[in-house]
Amino acid sequence: MATVFLDLAMSLDGFIAGPNNNDGGLHEWYFCENHKSQQILDELHHDIGAMILGKKAFGIQPDGFDTPYKVPHFVLSHEARATISRDGMQFIFVSDGIKSALDQAKAAAGEKDVCIAGGANTAQQFLKAGLLDEIQLHLVPVLLGGGLRLFEHLGSARIEFERTRIVEAPLATHIRYRVKKM
Amino acid sequence: MATVFLDLAMSLDGFIAGPNNNDGGLHEWYFCENHKSQQILDELHHDIGAMILGKKAFGIQPDGFDTPYKVPHFVLSHEARATISRDGMQFIFVSDGIKSALDQAKAAAGEKDVCIAGGANTAQQFLKAGLLDEIQLHLVPVLLGGGLRLFEHLGSARIEFERTRIVEAPLATHIRYRVKKM
Repeated sequence: MATVFLDLAMSLDGFIAGPNNNDGGLHEWYFCENHKSQQILDELHHDIGAMILGKKAFGIQPDGFDTPYKVPHFVLSHEARATISRDGMQFIFVSDGIKSALDQAKAAAGEKDVCIAGGANTAQQFLKAGLLDEIQLHLVPVLLGGGLRLFEHLGSARIEFERTRIVEAPLATHIRYRVKKM
Repeated sequence: MATVFLDLAMSLDGFIAGPNNNDGGLHEWYFCENHKSQQILDELHHDIGAMILGKKAFGIQPDGFDTPYKVPHFVLSHEARATISRDGMQFIFVSDGIKSALDQAKAAAGEKDVCIAGGANTAQQFLKAGLLDEIQLHLVPVLLGGGLRLFEHLGSARIEFERTRIVEAPLATHIRYRVKKM
């Protein structure tokens, strides 16, 4: 069955974007020509059959954005909106919640995996709802001192993981965890 | 020259203690009979020549606490207080700031290393002052949802690290970083 996983780059102090919403250098590994990080990227390209992202992560461009993943992108949105077709893929807006988005993404992905690509609020909703199978963190060795924190507003329920893999690349430590189902 | 390093167990959401100041299970690796975690503990015992900790981490017991590290423990304190001798080691109270504590700890450690053992406020003071050479995190695969956060109140100055080692033990990922001096 398709795996539902969160995939985000995070600083040591837990931010997925820096102060003033800048990138914070968290995605330099993505553009680094290194075979270990490339292995991670190749795997993502191979495994992902659909993406889910929040409205803020989608951004404000009316025609969407360039994405290396040529699979359907489901965008959580408060209002209904026409699908955007762009460069061989589609941005599909879902206004009836994360479970609906996940059902649609799973159907679109088929045998492949569904990737939750952010932002923080979307990740938190999926975590709290217990809808994730795995998380992959690209842990970047920097303290940003501020920005968008990934793990907060999660309530007081303890969530445990089992580490399944580590890849040590120069600009990030790629750590993958399986969510322990309680 | 002696290395000054921070050594703390941290949850994936960045807490070094859980809600209501409980342990959060963050130190189970410490008591786990596993050769990889044991390697980390053996190294700490071999390397540490002096410890520095905050008043809150020291606790409220008038005679101190049992510690496996039989080296001088320098306790940051607001008031002067008589040294406590206990079980072959000493708790020495330092009321004139972290630099003084560090100077005294380095002198006591000689060729060995100085370990900053918490809590969060003490760690933050040393980070902000640029007094750390390395940090070792025992990253525990759990989200606690609340507690004592390690990396906050650090201001907006970016602090970069170089990863120097990872040890993958069952209950924690032991990651060591060198602070990049700007």
